[in-house]
Amino acid sequence: MLLALSTWCEVEAYLERSRAIIVPIGSMEQHGPTGLIGTDSICPEVIAKAAAEDNPDLLVGPTFNVGCAQHHLGFPGSMTLRPSTMIAAIGDWCASLRRHGFERIYWLNGHGGNIATIAAAFVEVYAERSLSGPDSATPPLTLRQRNWWDLPSVMSVCKRLHPQNEGSHATPSEVAITYAAYPDQVRNVPLQPKVASSGGFTDAEDYRQRFPDGRIGSDPSQATVEAGIEIIDAAAKALQEDFSAFCAL
Amino acid sequence: MLLALSTWCEVEAYLERSRAIIVPIGSMEQHGPTGLIGTDSICPEVIAKAAAEDNPDLLVGPTFNVGCAQHHLGFPGSMTLRPSTMIAAIGDWCASLRRHGFERIYWLNGHGGNIATIAAAFVEVYAERSLSGPDSATPPLTLRQRNWWDLPSVMSVCKRLHPQNEGSHATPSEVAITYAAYPDQVRNVPLQPKVASSGGFTDAEDYRQRFPDGRIGSDPSQATVEAGIEIIDAAAKALQEDFSAFCAL
Amino acid sequence: MLLALSTWCEVEAYLERSRAIIVPIGSMEQHGPTGLIGTDSICPEVIAKAAAEDNPDLLVGPTFNVGCAQHHLGFPGSMTLRPSTMIAAIGDWCASLRRHGFERIYWLNGHGGNIATIAAAFVEVYAERSLSGPDSATPPLTLRQRNWWDLPSVMSVCKRLHPQNEGSHATPSEVAITYAAYPDQVRNVPLQPKVASSGGFTDAEDYRQRFPDGRIGSDPSQATVEAGIEIIDAAAKALQEDFSAFCAL
Amino acid sequence: MLLALSTWCEVEAYLERSRAIIVPIGSMEQHGPTGLIGTDSICPEVIAKAAAEDNPDLLVGPTFNVGCAQHHLGFPGSMTLRPSTMIAAIGDWCASLRRHGFERIYWLNGHGGNIATIAAAFVEVYAERSLSGPDSATPPLTLRQRNWWDLPSVMSVCKRLHPQNEGSHATPSEVAITYAAYPDQVRNVPLQPKVASSGGFTDAEDYRQRFPDGRIGSDPSQATVEAGIEIIDAAAKALQEDFSAFCAL
Amino acid sequence: MLLALSTWCEVEAYLERSRAIIVPIGSMEQHGPTGLIGTDSICPEVIAKAAAEDNPDLLVGPTFNVGCAQHHLGFPGSMTLRPSTMIAAIGDWCASLRRHGFERIYWLNGHGGNIATIAAAFVEVYAERSLSGPDSATPPLTLRQRNWWDLPSVMSVCKRLHPQNEGSHATPSEVAITYAAYPDQVRNVPLQPKVASSGGFTDAEDYRQRFPDGRIGSDPSQATVEAGIEIIDAAAKALQEDFSAFCAL
Amino acid sequence: MLLALSTWCEVEAYLERSRAIIVPIGSMEQHGPTGLIGTDSICPEVIAKAAAEDNPDLLVGPTFNVGCAQHHLGFPGSMTLRPSTMIAAIGDWCASLRRHGFERIYWLNGHGGNIATIAAAFVEVYAERSLSGPDSATPPLTLRQRNWWDLPSVMSVCKRLHPQNEGSHATPSEVAITYAAYPDQVRNVPLQPKVASSGGFTDAEDYRQRFPDGRIGSDPSQATVEAGIEIIDAAAKALQEDFSAFCAL
Ligand code: NI
Ligand code: NI
Ligand code: NI
Ligand code: NI
Ligand code: NI
Ligand code: NI
Repeated sequence: MLLALSTWCEVEAYLERSRAIIVPIGSMEQHGPTGLIGTDSICPEVIAKAAAEDNPDLLVGPTFNVGCAQHHLGFPGSMTLRPSTMIAAIGDWCASLRRHGFERIYWLNGHGGNIATIAAAFVEVYAERSLSGPDSATPPLTLRQRNWWDLPSVMSVCKRLHPQNEGSHATPSEVAITYAAYPDQVRNVPLQPKVASSGGFTDAEDYRQRFPDGRIGSDPSQATVEAGIEIIDAAAKALQEDFSAFCAL
Repeated sequence: MLLALSTWCEVEAYLERSRAIIVPIGSMEQHGPTGLIGTDSICPEVIAKAAAEDNPDLLVGPTFNVGCAQHHLGFPGSMTLRPSTMIAAIGDWCASLRRHGFERIYWLNGHGGNIATIAAAFVEVYAERSLSGPDSATPPLTLRQRNWWDLPSVMSVCKRLHPQNEGSHATPSEVAITYAAYPDQVRNVPLQPKVASSGGFTDAEDYRQRFPDGRIGSDPSQATVEAGIEIIDAAAKALQEDFSAFCAL
Repeated sequence: MLLALSTWCEVEAYLERSRAIIVPIGSMEQHGPTGLIGTDSICPEVIAKAAAEDNPDLLVGPTFNVGCAQHHLGFPGSMTLRPSTMIAAIGDWCASLRRHGFERIYWLNGHGGNIATIAAAFVEVYAERSLSGPDSATPPLTLRQRNWWDLPSVMSVCKRLHPQNEGSHATPSEVAITYAAYPDQVRNVPLQPKVASSGGFTDAEDYRQRFPDGRIGSDPSQATVEAGIEIIDAAAKALQEDFSAFCAL
Repeated sequence: MLLALSTWCEVEAYLERSRAIIVPIGSMEQHGPTGLIGTDSICPEVIAKAAAEDNPDLLVGPTFNVGCAQHHLGFPGSMTLRPSTMIAAIGDWCASLRRHGFERIYWLNGHGGNIATIAAAFVEVYAERSLSGPDSATPPLTLRQRNWWDLPSVMSVCKRLHPQNEGSHATPSEVAITYAAYPDQVRNVPLQPKVASSGGFTDAEDYRQRFPDGRIGSDPSQATVEAGIEIIDAAAKALQEDFSAFCAL
Repeated sequence: MLLALSTWCEVEAYLERSRAIIVPIGSMEQHGPTGLIGTDSICPEVIAKAAAEDNPDLLVGPTFNVGCAQHHLGFPGSMTLRPSTMIAAIGDWCASLRRHGFERIYWLNGHGGNIATIAAAFVEVYAERSLSGPDSATPPLTLRQRNWWDLPSVMSVCKRLHPQNEGSHATPSEVAITYAAYPDQVRNVPLQPKVASSGGFTDAEDYRQRFPDGRIGSDPSQATVEAGIEIIDAAAKALQEDFSAFCAL
Repeated sequence: MLLALSTWCEVEAYLERSRAIIVPIGSMEQHGPTGLIGTDSICPEVIAKAAAEDNPDLLVGPTFNVGCAQHHLGFPGSMTLRPSTMIAAIGDWCASLRRHGFERIYWLNGHGGNIATIAAAFVEVYAERSLSGPDSATPPLTLRQRNWWDLPSVMSVCKRLHPQNEGSHATPSEVAITYAAYPDQVRNVPLQPKVASSGGFTDAEDYRQRFPDGRIGSDPSQATVEAGIEIIDAAAKALQEDFSAFCAL
């Protein structure tokens, strides 16, 4: 069940069954010469939608589609929020959902660069209530973030499909998911070198100097539509179970 | 051409051709018993995508999908940003795009409640440069917002299709667009009364008291997939022209 | 009755009679070679004071005298708030008045560039309560903004007095009001061209290039003290009625 | 010379003569049963205007008319900015004036409760440049605040006129200034006790409990129009000299 | 009793005895060629610790060790918060302590440049409750700041020890306190001139030009460990009494 | 070398040798019935000071002593910053140090709850420059955070000393460090149960319900002064090497 494709009456009915919701959260940033700029938003969105298919007990909210990607700004098309903006925005999303009686929000994340800021945003939300004391008028929320690749068993599927050169940015697995989601978007552009170098980085200028085509440690030429389908299937199943467990906490 | 489905190399090439981009901006809010919560984001997104189809000179960015909808929070599923958050977020989106050389950003809006805050966000962006003086290190930006229903000729199509009871929220035209975009999402729920009442409002509690099922002045039971297709076609063509004119300013 | 010229005991008594207040809001910005920098604050202040004269049921607050005028910063003396600052300030003014039991605040606006940010500020105020839910501890507020030129019948007076070349900035009508308010401030400086050009603008640098002497579309040499008196009279009467209707909502 | 009653061309000419400006800053807050709510804004405004009379080298900006008055919110009509809002607003005023080439801003203050926040706002403005280092693109500003009662010789006039029970809030001297400015606003309301008690305070509730009619330590029944005229004269002369010295720093 | 060296159970027990706490607050900024960068934080910390020694009714919190020192940034090692940041941080410290039942917070200050911003921060804290009205859910707080040199009798000790050239920055008294606290940190560096010049300043560039070695008006070569011990003793005793009086307000 | 115990001239000389600095960062929060509230600040501070001893090439800044600890607010004495405040404060600390020519800042962290917000703060700092583009006037910074327990080899020492029930909050290792630093602060309070339970948490109320005495998974009764000395020694050596490597990046 998708929030964007539901009516308010249907959400009202859902809230009788469940007080939890999944929110995909990603980024809009370069993914090398063959990966799509939307990759990190597409992945959690596609996985969440697959999990929500014919599932009246799993509601998926809108995708938080621009995240923290300052380090990618050296590559055209990358977009970022400042962490302070992202914390405010996540806070408003949480406050909106809490207003309706949602008690649990599960953020399915697609971008490593978001992890810290999402966690900080949760603390900002919790702090409001913690500072008010036990008599706070604000009802409690339980917030969780999960990277799609950390869903149980998903990484083992990725490793089986791409035993080598998964890397950490513009990975064959994430690129495969986007190719499965948009089969007409497969790019066949030669990568030079085949496997990108690895390492750390600071700001956008530094990143671009270290990783000239944008990839980190990966060989995304391995990505196929078929592999993407397999990963989505595994991740969607794992998400259903993980979300059920989250609801039952 | 869609930013989310492009690589950074393709955006780099686009910037050789054009310095302008379209960003759909909408809301996530109740649209009555038969309208989808995502309506106001779906409409500009669908229109922009139609205009971008096979069009290498019209780039569409990600959809800014949660806007200012505090007045709808009395209805489950509605979400809002505070205006101050939205101004910060629009500022970050603009700053990101400017970093790459974009000089013109055209926000295609789908939600009346966003208009003021988008305009305020533009002023916030302009003010930074205006306060720095003519020697500002920040390059200039030209920002424009356009509601899809204000695109040339679109309103006349809407009026021809729904000569009566278009109303101002959960209108047959916007609902028709979403039905055309998602034909399996057509809702056939009886509306009572057939035509909703009209008027002003303040906050969420006030709104819900005045408009018990969420609609304002509209009879969305008129919405059909066919009408939606017609509106999308008209709007996409108008957008192409309006955007070309914007690029040539 | 003017807040600044009342004692707290008198305001306490007023609150027994009425829960509404008018706040003039304007700008401090260039108005061409013959218009005063304070024009947009003077106009609503003068009209509100005229309406408040001998009227114990119409309370006028202090004038919010610097608004959103980033586009005028290319001309010496213009001042601006950033929209984010203005939203915070309007929020504090509203919160202060609500503390005393005011339930309705009518902002009489004198500057087109303020409209969007005032509207956004209202949404920021409403959102606080909407996000808290129906059990919010914060009492509700009803906020309204009205441009003095949009008061019923006022524009027709302006058009009768200046059937041509009213324009949109440094208009003969607003200049006339200020001349009526300060008859010793009439400027007789030749305007070149007589009627300024029209069009849009972005930031201060852009504005100054397009409108070299600051006017947009107007010929303020038509402005006279007599015309100003007539407009003030019409606007003050219209304000009294409009405010009464607002109180009775 | 008053900014609000000047044209931009006149300000341009002024900037050829001087790079300094005076900005009156006050408050909107209760001043006991006989003092006007606008007292603290009226006082510096009236003194600055008197000093500016026929003085082409002394420019007076708009009055910053709502300041930090949280402690007065227990009395109807009092208004406040939060210090964080006031710092942002003063920052925008400073940035606007700096844009035009103003290098010195002299804030003539009328409210003790503003002093700390004005000083903090100055530090916020200076910090921007100090953190940028000596190659900062931002031109330097020199900021000064002066309470009107601290202008050389003014306090001795006040003490001569009211040798006893000047107190610290709703003082006979400040009330006298407002009566001189608005002779039709003299209030003859009995004060009980004649001399208010003195002491410290924290928030609005605490203040109201300690000072039931709003005054602190004062007997404003001594205030007369004549005394007000004398104080204004002394203060205006002192301001002219103090501002000249400030310009010559 | 020191908060950092207590367990939560011990603080719980303290709160049965007292609802007040002392928080040292200072700065990290240059203090001339012989003064330590930490001087302004060391002084209140050392005095508060001396007062807390064997004193179960005087609890000392952590030292707020970086304050408002933008004007010192021309000298390596100086650090600053912007006032807006400092107001937010002091607000969070106050909110945290209030959560546990603390009703009185006594800030023992060591830096003149902090005074205004601390005062503004208090107003920000009070304003929250004042704007909520008398039914506010937030319990009241009583906040106090005291410079250690303003503690009763301390200045007279300083003047007796250094009858001349105490100056106002990098004073012999504050340097003596740090030497007493860290006897191995005494610096014997020649000062040129022996007594620094005096005067005002704006930003860091201006400060460094006026005060080339960082001192203002002082001759800190007078500082000795013995003098420091004497001042600390006097200040610690005075603090105990002043804090007792504050608790009994 | 300690910043707080240096003069500006000494820091100026240090900057000739090195452009890097260590900043200890911790928290002020309950650590169970036997752990000190300052534990998480004391640990990195003590380790950094040990590493700085007689080391002219390792400069240690002031300790950032209150961090993100909202979840501990159910226990008296715990203090927290909101993440948004902490991001602003870390930003100001970074900006201050950058002003002097520091190019690398190594944050030695003592609190797991800080990790995400520190990382977000780094992104906020980097984003400023990344959004400005490669011609940014702001010099680049390299930021690093390291938990003291993640310093090479330290965890193995901890595990050798406390092979069981280290747990994750109020661990024997961190408590041992504080006992080594303050041998007179050893607490012998019986713990019930001996080993605390483990698990996750959300806000303060939730945390206190799950972990009634504040500990998570630990048995801190194992902590001894001797163990603390051993850990400090190992950590200080590891820090020297890790910092050298950081400087040579
Ligand atoms: Ni990715
Ligand atoms: Ni809509
Ligand atoms: Ni105007
Ligand atoms: Ni006053
Ligand atoms: Ni000092
Ligand atoms: Ni710990």
